Amino acid sequence: MDQLGIVANISQNIARRGANILNVDIYIDFDNGSPVFYSRSEFSFDPLQWPRDVMEEDFAEIAHIFKAQKSLVRVPECDENLKMAVLASWQDHCLVDLLHRWQEGELPAQIGAVISNHSRGPNTHVVRFLERHGIPYHYLPTTKSDKREGEIVELVKDTDFLVLARYMQVLSSTFLRSYGKDIINIHHGLLPSFKGANPYRQAYQAGVKLIGATSHFVTEELDDGPIIEQMVDRVSHRDTLTTFAMKSENLEKQCLAKAIKYYCEKRIVRYSGNKTIVFG
Amino acid sequence: MDQLGIVANISQNIARRGANILNVDIYIDFDNGSPVFYSRSEFSFDPLQWPRDVMEEDFAEIAHIFKAQKSLVRVPECDENLKMAVLASWQDHCLVDLLHRWQEGELPAQIGAVISNHSRGPNTHVVRFLERHGIPYHYLPTTKSDKREGEIVELVKDTDFLVLARYMQVLSSTFLRSYGKDIINIHHGLLPSFKGANPYRQAYQAGVKLIGATSHFVTEELDDGPIIEQMVDRVSHRDTLTTFAMKSENLEKQCLAKAIKYYCEKRIVRYSGNKTIVFG
Amino acid sequence: MDQLGIVANISQNIARRGANILNVDIYIDFDNGSPVFYSRSEFSFDPLQWPRDVMEEDFAEIAHIFKAQKSLVRVPECDENLKMAVLASWQDHCLVDLLHRWQEGELPAQIGAVISNHSRGPNTHVVRFLERHGIPYHYLPTTKSDKREGEIVELVKDTDFLVLARYMQVLSSTFLRSYGKDIINIHHGLLPSFKGANPYRQAYQAGVKLIGATSHFVTEELDDGPIIEQMVDRVSHRDTLTTFAMKSENLEKQCLAKAIKYYCEKRIVRYSGNKTIVFG
Amino acid sequence: MDQLGIVANISQNIARRGANILNVDIYIDFDNGSPVFYSRSEFSFDPLQWPRDVMEEDFAEIAHIFKAQKSLVRVPECDENLKMAVLASWQDHCLVDLLHRWQEGELPAQIGAVISNHSRGPNTHVVRFLERHGIPYHYLPTTKSDKREGEIVELVKDTDFLVLARYMQVLSSTFLRSYGKDIINIHHGLLPSFKGANPYRQAYQAGVKLIGATSHFVTEELDDGPIIEQMVDRVSHRDTLTTFAMKSENLEKQCLAKAIKYYCEKRIVRYSGNKTIVFG
Repeated sequence: MDQLGIVANISQNIARRGANILNVDIYIDFDNGSPVFYSRSEFSFDPLQWPRDVMEEDFAEIAHIFKAQKSLVRVPECDENLKMAVLASWQDHCLVDLLHRWQEGELPAQIGAVISNHSRGPNTHVVRFLERHGIPYHYLPTTKSDKREGEIVELVKDTDFLVLARYMQVLSSTFLRSYGKDIINIHHGLLPSFKGANPYRQAYQAGVKLIGATSHFVTEELDDGPIIEQMVDRVSHRDTLTTFAMKSENLEKQCLAKAIKYYCEKRIVRYSGNKTIVFG
Repeated sequence: MDQLGIVANISQNIARRGANILNVDIYIDFDNGSPVFYSRSEFSFDPLQWPRDVMEEDFAEIAHIFKAQKSLVRVPECDENLKMAVLASWQDHCLVDLLHRWQEGELPAQIGAVISNHSRGPNTHVVRFLERHGIPYHYLPTTKSDKREGEIVELVKDTDFLVLARYMQVLSSTFLRSYGKDIINIHHGLLPSFKGANPYRQAYQAGVKLIGATSHFVTEELDDGPIIEQMVDRVSHRDTLTTFAMKSENLEKQCLAKAIKYYCEKRIVRYSGNKTIVFG
Repeated sequence: MDQLGIVANISQNIARRGANILNVDIYIDFDNGSPVFYSRSEFSFDPLQWPRDVMEEDFAEIAHIFKAQKSLVRVPECDENLKMAVLASWQDHCLVDLLHRWQEGELPAQIGAVISNHSRGPNTHVVRFLERHGIPYHYLPTTKSDKREGEIVELVKDTDFLVLARYMQVLSSTFLRSYGKDIINIHHGLLPSFKGANPYRQAYQAGVKLIGATSHFVTEELDDGPIIEQMVDRVSHRDTLTTFAMKSENLEKQCLAKAIKYYCEKRIVRYSGNKTIVFG
Repeated sequence: MDQLGIVANISQNIARRGANILNVDIYIDFDNGSPVFYSRSEFSFDPLQWPRDVMEEDFAEIAHIFKAQKSLVRVPECDENLKMAVLASWQDHCLVDLLHRWQEGELPAQIGAVISNHSRGPNTHVVRFLERHGIPYHYLPTTKSDKREGEIVELVKDTDFLVLARYMQVLSSTFLRSYGKDIINIHHGLLPSFKGANPYRQAYQAGVKLIGATSHFVTEELDDGPIIEQMVDRVSHRDTLTTFAMKSENLEKQCLAKAIKYYCEKRIVRYSGNKTIVFG
């Protein structure tokens, strides 16, 4: 009975504040006993008519009426620009793609810092780009015994989320708990196949005819977090490990960029254990 | 200002009748001066609590309040099973596919009749299938001067929509006006390319690397009605007219079936001249 | 050094017999130490000028010169029509699709028999279709302790290959050895993910955004044989187990049909352990 | 009768020079009366055993024997690195993508010059990139009456082919004849639909459900040259002109890069009027 009137209540509230609904999407999860209701609304409004604090109270009240899980109710600032930090290793393709999309205005986010465990010279494209845009670049070489996680947490503590742009290190659960916010990873294989190291080689040896990339949230279990987006490309017996990598890198860039975009537009909700809703 | 509160009003109305919203999708068209609001709601309800006539009144009132275009407000029966008639020529692939999907319960519609301008023997798969399911089969051979349109109109007058499953005749505007309901066609080319006769050959001669199929509503202008769905497949220099046809037929079946499914689920709205909304 | 001149030798031989090469494809596998050479040639010839026995001698000689693995040298009859038997369970979608493609002439093979461990009434589409075309239908119900494999081997001993059209039984290694010829299976998941039972449910629970189907050769290890073809479709949080199945079935049909077609056209070569070459 | 033995002759010749065939692809065009034979061979060889001049003589002789069209017989240097010039306007996406792929070694070509009819400041990414790599950048503003074609021809006369990376000018037939070599264009629409200006808008207004990009050779007729590669992406009623452009740009980059790669690897042959073979 409990979702009776949720959409009504939300949209009526939006209407009585003189705001205009631009987009509504709802999803009801019937999989686990009692249905769970999820919704995303996009609306334009006049901040004089509907000040921030009133808006928050309004939605808190609706959340209260329908006994929503408080932590899940988000009323983002309309001009909100999430701040991300990007972690990378020696491979540039995802990092560079992400920087260019950011420059083109395709990613509605700020880049707080780029952290790499691989050294880059001052004249490399990445380092020059970051300098030019005033984005801090931190080189933190890792060893088996020292993942530099304490320093990383310190460097990213003011960010809203992390992006692992082919960062070739597994983050410890201590790190995850300590950072406490969302981390988006790109895995160069079609999860849940090919977890762990060298998914290109795994796929190549399996003789697959399709390869893929998967962007997902990071959880304590390696390559097992909720999947956000997946993409595939065709391979044949003519493909080598090298062309597997080339085709995959092309997918990884697109797949990671989509996940970041969805995330910044607040389209993603985690639900039902390890799944994601991606609102349209 | 006029869409203020439409979603609220609709969903509140659904809620106060004790019904549960299962799906809501809205779309606002900003392209032509003042925004136009479109919406589709799916809900489960108790017919004792919300009888049909009350439901219709409710929505009529909302339509009135927001000055909706009356003809566009549809409150379909929850157990509604639209009745279609299928027109075909000598090619069976779309017709057979459609009959099987219907048999599998994939198309939420009845088949009122199948009309063909091409003769089929009593022992053919199509004719036996129709007999077995008690669906009338009409053979109406057409000539250049007699398209038998009067008879067709008569035969399909009690249907809700027509499907042209590779019917190789252009229907006259007299027919369209006389029938007066929706007609869905499958075109074996990627519209607006390759209108008219022999799109396979047109595509083949153009040296394309992708071929496609298009399902669309029929309008008075040939192959120019609102597009519902399109699909493509890859071709190379190795493909011949024969393999163009084979690949395309595979697309045509799927593309037509999707359009019919969307249509029966009331997901399609025509708007902005010759476009379609396909609600998710 | 050993592949020096193989193409030359083959094509020269074809030319000196007055035959015309229509298609040549070669593939050299460099992955395992010394390169291994694979080749497929399609040619038209005059059987008076190049009788069957001479042709076989010619290729045997080439095989001898280049020390080819004898068992792999195939000189199929030009009008060869491989005979397959199809094993199915209660699900019809792959079986029916295969029968229709066969009827349309899309599969260059004969159907020797259809064997099912699930009962079908005499008035079902499948049974009537088979009757009409004079194809034997065998109902062999299996139990945990009796897979009826002896009877199956007996029934299919004169076929060239088997097709498992969603046959829900694992064939024993005794059966595989006893039959001794190729068996093509369709797996309703994107191998090597989702092996074994209920891949739809596995994929659903993994929260994937793409589902797929895989056609492959059957080997003693379950769902681990060389992959022939794979196809994917997009899913979202809105998809249910039911729509996973519907989308997947659509893929399974196409994926199995492609594998059978490639197989009958002798495009497939197994190599390098568990991989396939699919010649273009 | 005339293609009898062509493959044999070519491959035998390769073998007797001690070279190893790595890849052979042939295509026979049966569309226009007598069949026309096309072939591409890739082989490794020892330049001491098979010097350049001998190789050229060898192939000239084969060409002579089989009466090949001399201008079509190409024996490229094994370390050949074609030189291209890139023409662009104000849009950077294709140009930048191409520069990065070139830097990553994905395009086996040199960049002789970049010419733009749109001004770029010295601190822009493109200009800095070119400077760093010592690639000349020429700003040649065009007007309706002065396309600066004379100067362009002069600047590119030592290049092997031109790339129009969204160059928003139609090149005159005088220019084409004067340059005399291949020119590859990227069209931001799915040719032969949406020729000419503003294909995004054309597609948007046509209400298509798929948009595409096309890379093709430039001929005297606008957007009508032989198609090399095409790619599509899905759009819905939710897409705007802006998202049409974003999705299309993503396709354009990939589609142009593929065409250039195929071209540099000598995989493309123009044939049968306005078609292309793209050898695998």
